[in-house]
Amino acid sequence: MNLLILTPQDDLADGVCTITDDRADHIRKILKLVAGDSIRVGLLSGPAGTALIEEVFDRRVVLRCGEMTEIAPPIVEIDIVCAVPRPQTLKKVLITAAGMGVRRLHLLRTRRVDKSYLQSKVLNPERYRPLLIEGLAQGKLTRLPEVTLHPRFRPFIEDELPGLVAETEGTHLLLPDQSGEARLDGVLDKSVRRLIIAIGPEGGWVPFEIKKLERAGFTTFSLGPWTLRVETALAAVLSQAELVVGER
Amino acid sequence: MNLLILTPQDDLADGVCTITDDRADHIRKILKLVAGDSIRVGLLSGPAGTALIEEVFDRRVVLRCGEMTEIAPPIVEIDIVCAVPRPQTLKKVLITAAGMGVRRLHLLRTRRVDKSYLQSKVLNPERYRPLLIEGLAQGKLTRLPEVTLHPRFRPFIEDELPGLVAETEGTHLLLPDQSGEARLDGVLDKSVRRLIIAIGPEGGWVPFEIKKLERAGFTTFSLGPWTLRVETALAAVLSQAELVVGER
Repeated sequence: MNLLILTPQDDLADGVCTITDDRADHIRKILKLVAGDSIRVGLLSGPAGTALIEEVFDRRVVLRCGEMTEIAPPIVEIDIVCAVPRPQTLKKVLITAAGMGVRRLHLLRTRRVDKSYLQSKVLNPERYRPLLIEGLAQGKLTRLPEVTLHPRFRPFIEDELPGLVAETEGTHLLLPDQSGEARLDGVLDKSVRRLIIAIGPEGGWVPFEIKKLERAGFTTFSLGPWTLRVETALAAVLSQAELVVGER
Repeated sequence: MNLLILTPQDDLADGVCTITDDRADHIRKILKLVAGDSIRVGLLSGPAGTALIEEVFDRRVVLRCGEMTEIAPPIVEIDIVCAVPRPQTLKKVLITAAGMGVRRLHLLRTRRVDKSYLQSKVLNPERYRPLLIEGLAQGKLTRLPEVTLHPRFRPFIEDELPGLVAETEGTHLLLPDQSGEARLDGVLDKSVRRLIIAIGPEGGWVPFEIKKLERAGFTTFSLGPWTLRVETALAAVLSQAELVVGER
């Protein structure tokens, strides 16, 4: 936990807040902070700053928040379209996406997505929200990614995607795939203001899906010589995109 | 499992091999292969090719291997120096390192490494070897990374590192750290033939360690604006390095 996230459930009166859950344990047992220490805090979907720890007693920590400032959004906003992975992988994807500043995560059912994955409890907001917050606390961010589930491939690509693309001028669509010959720095330039990146399922997209994505405007490229797990592919593509179009 | 790894324990007589462990279950239950199907196989630390499945019966699969060819090593070889992480993280680091083609993993005790991590059973070869093989099977590789443990920071940097650097001409030493102002493409050029990349512990290096690493030749750079978990930082730095110096 690199940033203590305070949510609307935390009663923040006059900048003072008492927490009595796992976060309190973390402060006491892992960070080993005591009264008088300070800690970075962020308001969910809001600003971040420093808080003074006024009291640590068992599973109870009292904080006094100082001045908070907004965290600037990334220069290039990123939407991830991700084939619904198995639940254990989905958890990692949610944490990584939140921690690396993804704005939206579109979970898409594709041909090679096992039907059972769509029944996963992790797809319920009350289950995935804490994972997103865990990612934010790791990544020192406060903006909760939006998560949406799209149970049908074709309607998403044909009916919803054009609207998403039209939202922001300078949106590029990227499809990391081993079939790609180009590298990311060959298909992206600095004019880009927003990326929509599609990450396939274990076992990959079927040819029909690749064709459909390319027709919808996705540019295929190769991340490298590897065959990566989904959560690793997510980190890999975000870090390459950062190198090519991130702020200097 | 994208590549079935056969080890010296697998009795491969005249190209025929019978497997009776978890791999057999995986072939039957996850990949749902039957007699007559083929599967990609690789010999640990050796060549890879295709095998014909001759028989699938309960927890027993008989394979007949076809011609095998060596997997070319990466153009730029990578050694990772990684502060010993907590055991659960170490497992992920081992899998990711093997799957992304790292040649050597030097596990280093640094100031912020919890003493208890050095007692982890995952540091025993009989415990980490299966994790490396899991990574190879994911990444379709056969070369087992060498893993070494260095319980003392200073002797490793002062006495062992110079020998590692001298092994290969064109070795660059990289230190991804938020203090870095340069980006990877600003500090690396195509002449590099080998990288030694240092990844710090949760909580980061202490200033003394950073100074020591920089004096030893490490160049500090920024991966991006994030604060990443160790296993995510590993994937991120390997994917950025691939973009800058990988084969085209």
